Amino acid sequence: MRSEIAEQPAALRRTLADLLPRTPEIAQLGRRTRHVLFIARGSSDNAAVYGSYLVQAHCGRLTSLASPSVATTYGAELDLSGVLAVAISQSGRTEEIVETTRWAAGCGARTVAITNGAGSPLTRDADLALVTRAGDEVAVPATKTYTTQLAALAVLALGLGADLDQGELTAVPDTLETHLESPDERITDMAERLVDVHGAVVSGRGLAFSTALETALKLKEACYLRAMGLSYADLLHGPIAVVDRSTPAILVAADSGPTLPGTVALAERVTAAGAASYGIGGGPRLREACDLAVPAPDLPEWLAPVGLAVPAQILTEQLSRLLGYDPDSPRGLGKVTQTS
Amino acid sequence: MRSEIAEQPAALRRTLADLLPRTPEIAQLGRRTRHVLFIARGSSDNAAVYGSYLVQAHCGRLTSLASPSVATTYGAELDLSGVLAVAISQSGRTEEIVETTRWAAGCGARTVAITNGAGSPLTRDADLALVTRAGDEVAVPATKTYTTQLAALAVLALGLGADLDQGELTAVPDTLETHLESPDERITDMAERLVDVHGAVVSGRGLAFSTALETALKLKEACYLRAMGLSYADLLHGPIAVVDRSTPAILVAADSGPTLPGTVALAERVTAAGAASYGIGGGPRLREACDLAVPAPDLPEWLAPVGLAVPAQILTEQLSRLLGYDPDSPRGLGKVTQTS
Repeated sequence: MRSEIAEQPAALRRTLADLLPRTPEIAQLGRRTRHVLFIARGSSDNAAVYGSYLVQAHCGRLTSLASPSVATTYGAELDLSGVLAVAISQSGRTEEIVETTRWAAGCGARTVAITNGAGSPLTRDADLALVTRAGDEVAVPATKTYTTQLAALAVLALGLGADLDQGELTAVPDTLETHLESPDERITDMAERLVDVHGAVVSGRGLAFSTALETALKLKEACYLRAMGLSYADLLHGPIAVVDRSTPAILVAADSGPTLPGTVALAERVTAAGAASYGIGGGPRLREACDLAVPAPDLPEWLAPVGLAVPAQILTEQLSRLLGYDPDSPRGLGKVTQTS
Repeated sequence: MRSEIAEQPAALRRTLADLLPRTPEIAQLGRRTRHVLFIARGSSDNAAVYGSYLVQAHCGRLTSLASPSVATTYGAELDLSGVLAVAISQSGRTEEIVETTRWAAGCGARTVAITNGAGSPLTRDADLALVTRAGDEVAVPATKTYTTQLAALAVLALGLGADLDQGELTAVPDTLETHLESPDERITDMAERLVDVHGAVVSGRGLAFSTALETALKLKEACYLRAMGLSYADLLHGPIAVVDRSTPAILVAADSGPTLPGTVALAERVTAAGAASYGIGGGPRLREACDLAVPAPDLPEWLAPVGLAVPAQILTEQLSRLLGYDPDSPRGLGKVTQTS
């Protein structure tokens, strides 16, 4: 996992070089679609959350996250004309995702596959395949396959006419490289503080909510931590009660942008409840409001989740080792999960 | 909370008597809509998950769960013509929900309000207000306002042309009443076994996934339990590793229907991983696969979540008291949560 974290700048560079020239194809396929339906599970579903906010906030289209059982278990027949279905799967071979994507096409949707599995069933079925170039990923917790999925989704958004600067996306690999060259020792401090907790809430808002969900998933699968990924508002709507001395909150935010003030306020509320608050990203404002915060790569808000994943990955890898586990091979998990 | 749990049959009877005659209005408003967008937070968002599966599986329409920050924080402009926006809010006064519903109308959606707040801003704004008749709810954890929301969503589905039997819905209050008259002592046994756990995974599939999310929320807000609500497939895609001797799984299922076999298989997998598995509903098949299971009201699969909520509420209430808390007034929570 550690070496694959370090490979992300190169993986992103290769992926963007391959995919950015394809925005005209995306624009062509996306013409006259009014709705984007994401089809994914696990880490890929967290990438879909990023895509969902990005497409709604910047491409003027409503989005849905598919419930695959609607297709595979209930066999529902929906009218999906005018819908662009975007399937995201690292392997491109998870049967449930392949089956749901075929179902969407059968219901009239146009289909895009985002996958690291060149030549996989998903790439063969889709109208347009955006193949990420992460290379082989050996560790079970997804790292470079996840961030390259985010990059592919950023390309998708540009293809769908987002009001965003392509140059900012092209600069992401260099920014991550610089960040990885000088690891922040506060991550180790944070990992050490998390050794004895009984659980954690992970929260973020808007685009960064995807990172909160992905961080919670990573902490569950590699550290067996009872990590609860919750949106900012849902946390306030009830589960704020769950944070306490042995259940800290980990808050994720871009260094700037419209969701930062809410996340800072949430950190203050967590502290007032007597729990520890740990920040990932969020710049000086979140750092001041938290007991401890680590910086993330300096990226604009729409791309921040690509960078925020990196300190979260390093934290997971370090905490897993501190707890005596092997982060590369968590118990009970294989690389390709089949669900039906 | 205990008395409000008992009031549910009467609350449901009043609600159905008021709302069932309004299916023609729903049908009229829903004409030429192809998509349903649910707008909700907290418990109401879990009700929306129920509505989302119901509408997709039985009304032939794609659905979305709104991300309110797309409206309130990002100020996105989407084309929502052909969209039926369904706002769900107990009070009808949560500003974020009111604001997002106004935004949806401004983007061209037709709007429905499902709320217990007669005369609230949400009922005044919406094209159609379906007011539940739960009566005053004093305890902070939602019980009768939640199950009456589910009933209103079942009425909505019938109005949108679902291939379902209205008589089955009309019978729900009596079935819940019978169930509540003879409480099952295994719930107390289950609550006692949960006193010492460090966390729990709550899972379910399809329509029952909504109950899993709601149960996890209740256990967080009234018992401060680190409860992780996860879909069946997402649990297999990673977090299955998190269940262990001190982190049991609570599995929720209808007594019959297409998602039961998968839930039974999940219970077997949890047990094989060395963790305890507790069942809510699922009939004899889930009971056999679990260490301990409690029965739910005997309802057809499409209505099972209305009944499954009841043993989950009783479990929450009993566990909260066993832990020395006051289930009616959890720390840090008010009845109407304002988020912005």
